[in-house]
Amino acid sequence: MTTKKTVPSDIEIAQQSSMQPIELIANGIGLKNDDIEQYGKYKAKISFEAIERVKTAQNGKLILVTAINPTAAGEGKSTVTVGLGDALRKLGKNAIIAMREPSLGPVMGVKGGAAGGGYAQVLPMEEINLHFTGDIHAITSANNALSALIDNHIHQGNELNIDPRRLIWKRVMDINDRALRNIVVGLGGPVQGVPREDGFDITVASEIMAVLCLSSDLNDLKTRLSRIVVGYTYGKEPVTVGDLGVGGALTLLLKDALKPNLVQTIEQTPALVHGGPFANIAHGCNSAMATKTALKLADYVVTEAGFGADLGAEKFLNIKSKVIDKSPDAVVIVATIRALKMHGGQEKGSLINEDLEALENGLENLKKHIETIQSFKLPFVIAINRFYTDTQKEIELLENWCNMHQAPYGLTEVWEKGGDGGKELAGEVLKAIEGGHSFTPLYSYEATISEKINAIAKGVYGANGAVFSSKAEKQMQQFEQLGWGKLPICMAKTQYSLSDDATLLGRPENFTIQIRELIPKLGAGFIVALTGEVMTMPGLPKKPAALKMDVNSKGKAEGLF
Amino acid sequence: MTTKKTVPSDIEIAQQSSMQPIELIANGIGLKNDDIEQYGKYKAKISFEAIERVKTAQNGKLILVTAINPTAAGEGKSTVTVGLGDALRKLGKNAIIAMREPSLGPVMGVKGGAAGGGYAQVLPMEEINLHFTGDIHAITSANNALSALIDNHIHQGNELNIDPRRLIWKRVMDINDRALRNIVVGLGGPVQGVPREDGFDITVASEIMAVLCLSSDLNDLKTRLSRIVVGYTYGKEPVTVGDLGVGGALTLLLKDALKPNLVQTIEQTPALVHGGPFANIAHGCNSAMATKTALKLADYVVTEAGFGADLGAEKFLNIKSKVIDKSPDAVVIVATIRALKMHGGQEKGSLINEDLEALENGLENLKKHIETIQSFKLPFVIAINRFYTDTQKEIELLENWCNMHQAPYGLTEVWEKGGDGGKELAGEVLKAIEGGHSFTPLYSYEATISEKINAIAKGVYGANGAVFSSKAEKQMQQFEQLGWGKLPICMAKTQYSLSDDATLLGRPENFTIQIRELIPKLGAGFIVALTGEVMTMPGLPKKPAALKMDVNSKGKAEGLF
Repeated sequence: MTTKKTVPSDIEIAQQSSMQPIELIANGIGLKNDDIEQYGKYKAKISFEAIERVKTAQNGKLILVTAINPTAAGEGKSTVTVGLGDALRKLGKNAIIAMREPSLGPVMGVKGGAAGGGYAQVLPMEEINLHFTGDIHAITSANNALSALIDNHIHQGNELNIDPRRLIWKRVMDINDRALRNIVVGLGGPVQGVPREDGFDITVASEIMAVLCLSSDLNDLKTRLSRIVVGYTYGKEPVTVGDLGVGGALTLLLKDALKPNLVQTIEQTPALVHGGPFANIAHGCNSAMATKTALKLADYVVTEAGFGADLGAEKFLNIKSKVIDKSPDAVVIVATIRALKMHGGQEKGSLINEDLEALENGLENLKKHIETIQSFKLPFVIAINRFYTDTQKEIELLENWCNMHQAPYGLTEVWEKGGDGGKELAGEVLKAIEGGHSFTPLYSYEATISEKINAIAKGVYGANGAVFSSKAEKQMQQFEQLGWGKLPICMAKTQYSLSDDATLLGRPENFTIQIRELIPKLGAGFIVALTGEVMTMPGLPKKPAALKMDVNSKGKAEGLF
Repeated sequence: MTTKKTVPSDIEIAQQSSMQPIELIANGIGLKNDDIEQYGKYKAKISFEAIERVKTAQNGKLILVTAINPTAAGEGKSTVTVGLGDALRKLGKNAIIAMREPSLGPVMGVKGGAAGGGYAQVLPMEEINLHFTGDIHAITSANNALSALIDNHIHQGNELNIDPRRLIWKRVMDINDRALRNIVVGLGGPVQGVPREDGFDITVASEIMAVLCLSSDLNDLKTRLSRIVVGYTYGKEPVTVGDLGVGGALTLLLKDALKPNLVQTIEQTPALVHGGPFANIAHGCNSAMATKTALKLADYVVTEAGFGADLGAEKFLNIKSKVIDKSPDAVVIVATIRALKMHGGQEKGSLINEDLEALENGLENLKKHIETIQSFKLPFVIAINRFYTDTQKEIELLENWCNMHQAPYGLTEVWEKGGDGGKELAGEVLKAIEGGHSFTPLYSYEATISEKINAIAKGVYGANGAVFSSKAEKQMQQFEQLGWGKLPICMAKTQYSLSDDATLLGRPENFTIQIRELIPKLGAGFIVALTGEVMTMPGLPKKPAALKMDVNSKGKAEGLF
């Protein structure tokens, strides 16, 4: 049960926890000391040689953790992911966790990290939440080196005939910085470059992050980087990284970032924390390298996908599963009573009060996500992540609802109790896996762009269909002609609603999805479909978390989280 | 002797060299395994605890390597620094090297690194030249987090009444990107921030780099960061990082970057490679933490200062020596016959031809730098870094000149032979140290800003004096009133000439130094005086080095350097 009253802050728990030297964690999953490259005593990267060597091993079982649509009440998906891994270990299973690494931007902005919470965290949490092993910095470097090389190409004579007004490659920064969203670069006269409109995204929204997370090795990384489309010529032909001749240089900058990072949870469960693409503009899962390697090293791999099942899980199942050639063996859908009540109409300020009607209404959101997972022909378990304000009647209502819908569920208290609080859930997950599955993706890649988008809009969001802007219509024609029509779709949609209107909670009906624009992500290997406004560079709040941060003379962090 | 004919490329030599595990290098200088934090097998950071523990040890002798004014012919100062450290070891001395870490920007731009060359390199050169241990990325993060926090402060109500037109804090990027020199940020309407002019410097020009390199511990780092002046209010009062309340957060981002990095040379000499401020806008030496720690761990520390003795050495002696409370025990002035001939008027294309007259004339540049070091009352040795085009007569002329001027010298062939090629130089340096010194800085900090600038212009550059623009005159008055007048001066001047005109080689006479503008660097603790145009964001050439870079499927770099 989650109760702020009895549990210390995340950073206090983290700093009080004792970690094992990372070699011992590696040894525990069959890796030798030489198979890892240490970054301090408690972080390591797994070498390419080791990854190559274990490739012949049999895959373990894959457990995907997803959630209802997120609300301001919080669901604790990362926390459940960590706690479920710990719980499986407590049940004697050889389990590994594979999850995303956090972006520094939000850390400085709003209080919160992406390394779990309470007694279900990955460690060392300070370092994971700050610079970690430098992966995100390497992506920032590669992204911006490409930008500099593009602008330099144009400045030095523009041999490729690039139209500066039709560049789609943006610069990135791993910080929430609204002032960089829309800028003009190249000012100051002829020796200072060519003036043009530009803008910065946050690094985790860079296509290079998505590419890194979908690459299977260095060669694949180079191939993907080289086919990234950065813009168009004056003749409207696409211009790629390969055309610019810098695919090798970008790969060189990313060669260490491609290696999965090994850390541990508070309970010393091994965790591969690697890659972290935005789940709106990209596919929102940790790296393929990490998931694939984890599957070779463990009998059970617990991984998560960003936001709700309409975004992260849909993309995991239609995009990432194909890349890693493995579907989940079971899906966990995380929900909290608080969040369900918000979906059912209760105000955030009143969540402390019992409201059975709101809960009942809110369950419609969960029901839609269950249907989605069922449509992929996968077994699922609902994780009811408990909070201390949950009343007995609310819990009973939820349990009865699950039983009535023949939906397996497990109550979890991992935030307060770590792995012990996740044993019930772990037991249900193991049962679900035993039943087997007959995984079926939602759509065939052979379908047209329009057919694929409609399949997602109808099948996953429950919309009547997709409506395309005239720009999107034109782009669909263009993309099909360019031979990009067989790529999967990566929807960019608000995470807060099943629809493209963030204010429509619960389970909206009788709506359409407005497709504003398409963006080709040839390196990642998908077409992004933008619905409504999608934020790719967050801003800082009035009182940024940075104001409370400090470090003492011994190097111990204070005020972080 | 330097001969491209017989020596493989730097990266080939580096990749063929065998390194010792970094723990063994650490053990060799009295550090235990627990005193270091490994970054892979061959890089480590030294812990704050270890640095604290060795503080009571006696200081070793400090050898500062500087040079004549750099030319396109190349001098090889870093190579001599590394080779001299190796040579001292060969002579049985306990020596450590302390040098700057390279910036990624120039690596992608022009062929060349800052990790030595030939058989006098620090390893692992690929990693040192790419992301290394992430120090520069941490500085980029901290610098740009501050920028985002400033713009957010203005956007969110501007409590401090900051005048956006009077901000002096710029964003940074570790890449050569001319398009970012002059930009407009905050476009796009009221929710996207406040529009204003801005620009990016390269990261090594960030004041935070200078601050990191002059800090003695985490507390000092926080104090210095907090007093950085970012701009002025509408009432023209300075606004500091402390006023914004984010000194703690910036320190937190830099806590690991402050720890010196330990690596090794090809000959397994320990090297602390840490920090790398620009030698034009900043003081151009590796970190104080690295130099001080090296002095505690070794009997001899070889360190270098950026560009010629007029820039790097002057700043080392007037700024850094005070911070580390230690002056050099001897100064090495690196020169090549090729470069001296360029100073004497020979064209770059003709350097392969013997030209005794040009050499004779060019020696005037060396002579001025000798006089400068003598004015600080320090012993010196000239390092004649040999190149295969040097003729016997040219070498004889140079040797005779040295003897005539009672200037001790050593011929070096470290590029081709490593430490063995530096023994003669090392012997001369040891003799010079034995003679002792009576170090005297050039000026008293108590002097006025104008007096200090004139002291450098006359004493080090050989100018008739400094001439101040009306803006600089006004700033001097303002700075003296604000109590900043007692800070040392950090001159920003072209490295190619003793004057502020890059085209005046040799030893110019009858000139004045034009002081265009002053910039307060309260965190670093000096006032920058800008002369002429100073480039703080380089651009890429027509054919950037990036075009030739690649990495094979095993992760081995190709085409780097």
